[in-house]
Amino acid sequence: MAGSSLGIIYRITTWGESHGPGLGVIVDGCPAGLSLNENDIQTYLDRRRPGQSRIATPRREADAVEILSGVFDGKTTGAPISLLVRNTSQRSGDYSEIAGYYRPGHADYTFDQKYGFRDYRGGGRSSGRETIGRVAAGAIAAKALSEFGISLTAYTKSIGPICIDPKSFDRDAIAETPTSMPDREASARAEKYLEDCMRSYDSSGGVIECVIDGVPAGLGDPVFEKLDANLAKAVMSVGAVKAVEIGDGIEVSARRGSENNDAFRMQDGKVVKSTNHAGGILGGISDGSRILLRAHIKPTPSIFSPQDTVNRAGEEISVSIKGRHDPVIVPRAVVVVESMAAITLLDALLVNAGAKMDHLKVIYKN
Amino acid sequence: MAGSSLGIIYRITTWGESHGPGLGVIVDGCPAGLSLNENDIQTYLDRRRPGQSRIATPRREADAVEILSGVFDGKTTGAPISLLVRNTSQRSGDYSEIAGYYRPGHADYTFDQKYGFRDYRGGGRSSGRETIGRVAAGAIAAKALSEFGISLTAYTKSIGPICIDPKSFDRDAIAETPTSMPDREASARAEKYLEDCMRSYDSSGGVIECVIDGVPAGLGDPVFEKLDANLAKAVMSVGAVKAVEIGDGIEVSARRGSENNDAFRMQDGKVVKSTNHAGGILGGISDGSRILLRAHIKPTPSIFSPQDTVNRAGEEISVSIKGRHDPVIVPRAVVVVESMAAITLLDALLVNAGAKMDHLKVIYKN
Amino acid sequence: MAGSSLGIIYRITTWGESHGPGLGVIVDGCPAGLSLNENDIQTYLDRRRPGQSRIATPRREADAVEILSGVFDGKTTGAPISLLVRNTSQRSGDYSEIAGYYRPGHADYTFDQKYGFRDYRGGGRSSGRETIGRVAAGAIAAKALSEFGISLTAYTKSIGPICIDPKSFDRDAIAETPTSMPDREASARAEKYLEDCMRSYDSSGGVIECVIDGVPAGLGDPVFEKLDANLAKAVMSVGAVKAVEIGDGIEVSARRGSENNDAFRMQDGKVVKSTNHAGGILGGISDGSRILLRAHIKPTPSIFSPQDTVNRAGEEISVSIKGRHDPVIVPRAVVVVESMAAITLLDALLVNAGAKMDHLKVIYKN
Amino acid sequence: MAGSSLGIIYRITTWGESHGPGLGVIVDGCPAGLSLNENDIQTYLDRRRPGQSRIATPRREADAVEILSGVFDGKTTGAPISLLVRNTSQRSGDYSEIAGYYRPGHADYTFDQKYGFRDYRGGGRSSGRETIGRVAAGAIAAKALSEFGISLTAYTKSIGPICIDPKSFDRDAIAETPTSMPDREASARAEKYLEDCMRSYDSSGGVIECVIDGVPAGLGDPVFEKLDANLAKAVMSVGAVKAVEIGDGIEVSARRGSENNDAFRMQDGKVVKSTNHAGGILGGISDGSRILLRAHIKPTPSIFSPQDTVNRAGEEISVSIKGRHDPVIVPRAVVVVESMAAITLLDALLVNAGAKMDHLKVIYKN
Repeated sequence: MAGSSLGIIYRITTWGESHGPGLGVIVDGCPAGLSLNENDIQTYLDRRRPGQSRIATPRREADAVEILSGVFDGKTTGAPISLLVRNTSQRSGDYSEIAGYYRPGHADYTFDQKYGFRDYRGGGRSSGRETIGRVAAGAIAAKALSEFGISLTAYTKSIGPICIDPKSFDRDAIAETPTSMPDREASARAEKYLEDCMRSYDSSGGVIECVIDGVPAGLGDPVFEKLDANLAKAVMSVGAVKAVEIGDGIEVSARRGSENNDAFRMQDGKVVKSTNHAGGILGGISDGSRILLRAHIKPTPSIFSPQDTVNRAGEEISVSIKGRHDPVIVPRAVVVVESMAAITLLDALLVNAGAKMDHLKVIYKN
Repeated sequence: MAGSSLGIIYRITTWGESHGPGLGVIVDGCPAGLSLNENDIQTYLDRRRPGQSRIATPRREADAVEILSGVFDGKTTGAPISLLVRNTSQRSGDYSEIAGYYRPGHADYTFDQKYGFRDYRGGGRSSGRETIGRVAAGAIAAKALSEFGISLTAYTKSIGPICIDPKSFDRDAIAETPTSMPDREASARAEKYLEDCMRSYDSSGGVIECVIDGVPAGLGDPVFEKLDANLAKAVMSVGAVKAVEIGDGIEVSARRGSENNDAFRMQDGKVVKSTNHAGGILGGISDGSRILLRAHIKPTPSIFSPQDTVNRAGEEISVSIKGRHDPVIVPRAVVVVESMAAITLLDALLVNAGAKMDHLKVIYKN
Repeated sequence: MAGSSLGIIYRITTWGESHGPGLGVIVDGCPAGLSLNENDIQTYLDRRRPGQSRIATPRREADAVEILSGVFDGKTTGAPISLLVRNTSQRSGDYSEIAGYYRPGHADYTFDQKYGFRDYRGGGRSSGRETIGRVAAGAIAAKALSEFGISLTAYTKSIGPICIDPKSFDRDAIAETPTSMPDREASARAEKYLEDCMRSYDSSGGVIECVIDGVPAGLGDPVFEKLDANLAKAVMSVGAVKAVEIGDGIEVSARRGSENNDAFRMQDGKVVKSTNHAGGILGGISDGSRILLRAHIKPTPSIFSPQDTVNRAGEEISVSIKGRHDPVIVPRAVVVVESMAAITLLDALLVNAGAKMDHLKVIYKN
Repeated sequence: MAGSSLGIIYRITTWGESHGPGLGVIVDGCPAGLSLNENDIQTYLDRRRPGQSRIATPRREADAVEILSGVFDGKTTGAPISLLVRNTSQRSGDYSEIAGYYRPGHADYTFDQKYGFRDYRGGGRSSGRETIGRVAAGAIAAKALSEFGISLTAYTKSIGPICIDPKSFDRDAIAETPTSMPDREASARAEKYLEDCMRSYDSSGGVIECVIDGVPAGLGDPVFEKLDANLAKAVMSVGAVKAVEIGDGIEVSARRGSENNDAFRMQDGKVVKSTNHAGGILGGISDGSRILLRAHIKPTPSIFSPQDTVNRAGEEISVSIKGRHDPVIVPRAVVVVESMAAITLLDALLVNAGAKMDHLKVIYKN
């Protein structure tokens, strides 16, 4: 099925396998007239690149992006933007062994069941490298959103049992710590925890949080295209995510209404909320306050410890996954979650342009 | 925007406001040849009906469904199935007051911001009655899925701090307790808790869990149309849901890979998993084991306790929400979550029919 | 498949069979704030109603439309607009005979092949009554377009060999002649021709032309969502249409470039074209001049003359179609073609709202 | 808007400009397990390549296709197939002049109106080179269709006033004549006609016909997704097409029902039609007989003769289009029309897989 696309107006289509010639994305529906160059995109891609610290895989890939279409004289033209990243560091030999069995926690078995066979090299289409296209499209979305005063910030909230302290929130630390945590002290502890995981041939999960500021009230639609529903889909579609929360998320289920409702009040002549348990979305529509979401990421399934599984011949075997794997996906997935949020937000902003006659009459004034 | 539809092949479009002439749904893409009558649908609608216990609003509406198209000689014809439920118990007078201000926790403010005005009667389009269309479409989906051996069971997992004990799981209790809990003892405690909430003019949140059995491996697509991503969207699009978990959900973020991976093994000549932390989905595709998801529901925002808010004139006021409201949404939302899961599953099953040449050659054999 | 919907932002979903309880349409994505009442829609529906002259079937159906949702205080709310027309004049007995065989020129055989059986009453879903939903949705689209200075006029260009004389074009005649021709003299001749067809138990085809004025330049997209491509689909999706032309249509294939190109020139400070062979669309995008299209309609397939066919048992038989049938579909299809054009135009106008940053910055000005 | 995609299940997304780095297409939703290599696609691309005769532009481009994803071990994997053709022969200098004015018959003016500016090099996105992606996707579709016994044949039916004689139909001549006519004698006359056009600095239009054999009954949907409606859109979305006919097309409007209806009869135990005025489609659904369509193509708008137009400064000027241009688009567009038909057919075939419970039970048998 044509399941490689996302979005209604700002619509992205990713393609590519980890060990084919390359990966990329078509961004269709980007408004014309947005300043854009390859560096805008490369900056984002560099944030998801491996090989940047001892807690990441030692693979080194430039992941240099090429804009193949849709930009002219430094501006988007309204035509589809095709972005290409060539694969340069594939070592297919690493993976030939896994062709024959099903790695626990991976999609090997389900791909075989669905399609009858699979491109087993490096996970093929279910590789983490598929997120290259998402991040490239997210970079463009974030650039467009910035023109409307909307900014996104994602970061690691926790790794295994180590959680940041919101009171120590340090925005600069996100880019400067190997964990992408906005808390240097927590980051140092998380690094130690990950080293311990690696020593025991194991891996860790974690939580990513994303905040979005400057979103005008009115984005998102009331029923199935709720802004939170689309954020949930976009974020849950990232490989290892097993739960998505909006605002106070899972905590609301144990609360009473009097605790959970956000009172409205006036501030500088504008309607604001006194609290933001709702995470900036009411009835599926942005309410003008900060949007907040969290993604729960499972531990890297590829671990060196021996595991029980079966092979394609139906024999029970024990395997120990070799190859280059991060002990935690979370730090590199931070920019992926931020990108998925940006893509969703921009699409909602574009879709909302036709929501009322007043908007349209301004555009189509005679 | 055309945001009232969901699904690719099994595509539903809901319409209607709580205080208009009626509500309904068009189910397009239902395969021809499915036995269907109004009772199949009414049974589901009756599960979401109010007025069935002291912990639910005393409104009594028959919510009788009429099939207007798409069924002939007791079978679906392949044409769109139009379902209509007339509103019979509207008391618009109850709501005239709220036209002028923004109820905390409701979508009044965001609708006004988005559209410039709103149908304020009973929440209009953001009313819980919008779920009538979802449940009617879910009933048909569940009936179709049952023909392939797939069954869904949703229930209340917790209300406020009261959680069921999985060891006491009693399937019959779901339909027999006013809380829709599969644990009569926990249900009794939850009822007491809710009575306490009502006495303090307050409300409660809760958690709904849904299990799906009999799903063949191979449903769902690898990238954006992952089965878990679509389940997350479908369930998050239900009014009061603030978090969605798949399988072990939020717990995976604190785990190690060796704890979280599900080993494969052979059983009766088939590949199975020894555990099911993944909740039946690997890489976005069903793996043949039980699918499990949870929805976290916020407390009913309409409470009698006084709350601070602002009116349309921009004045800060204090309000106490009148009208008929459930102290907890959860028990009535159980069938809604089950319906959203059924709709998503059936669509995935239909979409998957064209996934491989082998399938197609069986259908189009010469 | 979910094939009962059309449009991206202004998205309509029709449902209903000719002999079920009723027919209707959901109009989703209509901008909020458009004045709308049932009369706006009824006026259009009345134009497609049968029983208005001796060259139309003597069935008399009120086809009274009911707005079930999406309108509040006389204005669209942004919510889906559900429209219902109850069937009142079904005589199922008329059709029981055709259950067993395949009418030439009808969809009986193809429905049976596709779905395994069919609702044979009055053609079921392939009945001309399916266009009720189209026309109702077209009425709303036309009303919205009129707010932007866009108007549509469709009329009968020819019936059988009788063609209007463009020099005698009389707009009032469209509504006043039974043929919907804008030429009273040609209409009189066409009526005679149709009476002759009826006397010989036969029927006639014809051509409908539609002109659209006031369309701003810039609507439509460059590749697959070309405005002419979408008009072609919308119009070809009407039952009996076998060809669609844009502008000079089929005539361009015999021309030279120097004859066919439209020169640009200035008029009142605006760019205009000296001729309009292109029919108002260049490269799939409206160019600001009049849009013009034609639909070629086949003769009513239901004729009283005996015809050869086969029955469901595979026996060759001769049949003579009974029941109430128009000798020509064209006059009643005029409003259907106009409606399909309106639906397509409004969708293109809404989609175009997000085409460039300049538009968006006007809407989302800080 | 995301207008660069077409199809529901077999969904293609084209990208690229004539003078950017390259052009391509993503084919998403191709079933897994189809044998495919670059040569399958190159064969089709070579059919649309320029520089093959004296009646075509002397540009010579290899248009070598590279498969970047979606194929493994010589078979499609179910993942998106990304195809890239690098541009190698751009001479941007040729086009700098046209940046400042609007070529008659081209999309220069409408792009400027829609997007505020345009990539003026070689027509940018509205260049005929955009069809490279369509043809590449069509090659894959045609290969898949051939596995179900479906074959497509398109050819030039007429150029200017020169029409083929159906009695002299010679299938081999299509590939062997420079006009792609299946009639060598007519082709020779058409070449002479085109040489005359070139001498007078002019160009010619023409007609392309496409026949599709082996289509099973049942493809296409009854309302908006009619097979003929989708064929009309697909074909009308090709640059220079101004009219689309199905079956006898425009001729039906002057006919009587008794002439136009196709009688059913039995042949070898199967239901067949005695004639095929309908062109293989009844009620939007394939009827098992040959599908036939025609596209009317306008003359190449780029001609050397002087033409009146305006420049971006709003001054009336006279221009003579330089550069390398075919005097007729038709021969090279033959494979484009065939490709669009193949894409539409395959999508209809895939969509139909879920149309009835019987099909699904075969696939999902327990």
